[in-house]
Amino acid sequence: MEKLQRVQLATSLPGAKPICLVGTKSLTGITNLAPFSSITHFGSSPMLIGMVTRPDTVDRNTLRNIVDTESWTLNHVHRDILEQAHQCSARYPVETSEFSAVGMNEYFHPDITAPFVTESRIKYALSLEDIVDIKANNTKLIIGRVQLIEVPDDALHSDGGINLIESGSLASTSLDTYFSINKIAQLKYAKP
Amino acid sequence: MEKLQRVQLATSLPGAKPICLVGTKSLTGITNLAPFSSITHFGSSPMLIGMVTRPDTVDRNTLRNIVDTESWTLNHVHRDILEQAHQCSARYPVETSEFSAVGMNEYFHPDITAPFVTESRIKYALSLEDIVDIKANNTKLIIGRVQLIEVPDDALHSDGGINLIESGSLASTSLDTYFSINKIAQLKYAKP
Repeated sequence: MEKLQRVQLATSLPGAKPICLVGTKSLTGITNLAPFSSITHFGSSPMLIGMVTRPDTVDRNTLRNIVDTESWTLNHVHRDILEQAHQCSARYPVETSEFSAVGMNEYFHPDITAPFVTESRIKYALSLEDIVDIKANNTKLIIGRVQLIEVPDDALHSDGGINLIESGSLASTSLDTYFSINKIAQLKYAKP
Repeated sequence: MEKLQRVQLATSLPGAKPICLVGTKSLTGITNLAPFSSITHFGSSPMLIGMVTRPDTVDRNTLRNIVDTESWTLNHVHRDILEQAHQCSARYPVETSEFSAVGMNEYFHPDITAPFVTESRIKYALSLEDIVDIKANNTKLIIGRVQLIEVPDDALHSDGGINLIESGSLASTSLDTYFSINKIAQLKYAKP
C-alpha cells in the first residue's frame, strides 16, 4: 500500500473522532491554533483529557507551548467555523498566529494562560498533568486536568452531559473528512 | 456537582467519539465483548491504535484477556447491532460470554486468537504492543499493532480511507448516547 493510502486507512480505522482546535500561547506571546482529533477522556475525578502528538508535525508549536506554559484550551468545531479550523492545519511560520491567519477571534480568561476561540461554543481549559512518551513510535500522550469549562446554558443537560447536537459539534476522520452528528439513542445503564 | 453529573460532563467534553466492541478470549476459552469509545489513532507505520481502560470496571475481563493472549479485535458498531452492543456493557459473570448473552455471533480467523463479531462491518485485529500506566489516575493505555483488517469492498475509498457512512459506523458520547454521522465536507490539504 502506498504511504498516503496507508495513512488514510489507519486514520479512519478508529471511526468517527472528535475535532477540536487546541489553543496555546508561546512564551513570547504568540498565540497558536491547531486541529486535533486524538482527544480522549481519561478520567472524571479529577477530570483528565488526553491527546496524542508527534514531535515532527504541525503540532510541534502546540507541544512546545504546552511544555513551556503548561496551559491549553480545547475548542469544539462547528459547521460555521469548519473551513477556518481546517485551515489551521497549514504549516504557518512560528511567528504567525493562526487566529489572525485564518480570521478567528481569541479571548483570554484572567486565570488561564492559553487563548480561547471566541467563535467556538464548547470550550475548556486544561493544565498540564503529564506528558507520556509512547515508546512504540515516539509519539507523546499529553494529559491535562480540566480547569475551566464554558458551555452555553442551552447545551447543558440536566444530567450533567453536554448536548453535542445543540452545540453543533462536529466529528471527523482521516484528517480531512468531517461529519455532522444526529442523536439516534440514549440507552439505559445496562444490567445482565 | 454530583458524581454522576460530573461523569456525564467529563465523558461528553471530548465530543463525539468512536464506539467499538472489543473482542477477546480468555485462556480458558471464554469469549468476551465490551464496548469502548476511548479509541485513538497513534500511528500509521506501524499502524498503532490505543484505548484506555481502568482495572476496576467492566473492562477488567478485557484487560486480563489482552494481557494473557496479547490479542483483541475492534468491531465497529452500526445501528442494527446498537442495542446488543450497549448491552455488552453489563457486568456479566466471567464465565458468561457476551456473544451468547446478547445474541451476537463470533467467528475466528486462523491467525488470530481473539474473536470477531460477525455482524460488524468494519473490524480489525490487534496484537499487544505496549500497556502504558497512566500515573495521574491509575488508568492504563493499551496500544495495539493492527494485524488484519476486514472491510467490505464498497466501504473502502480509492484513497485508502474507510467510508464510515457506507459502513453505518456510529459515534457516541457519555457512555449512553449514540449518534449517526453525515459527511458534510472533505477538505484539501491546507497550505498557508
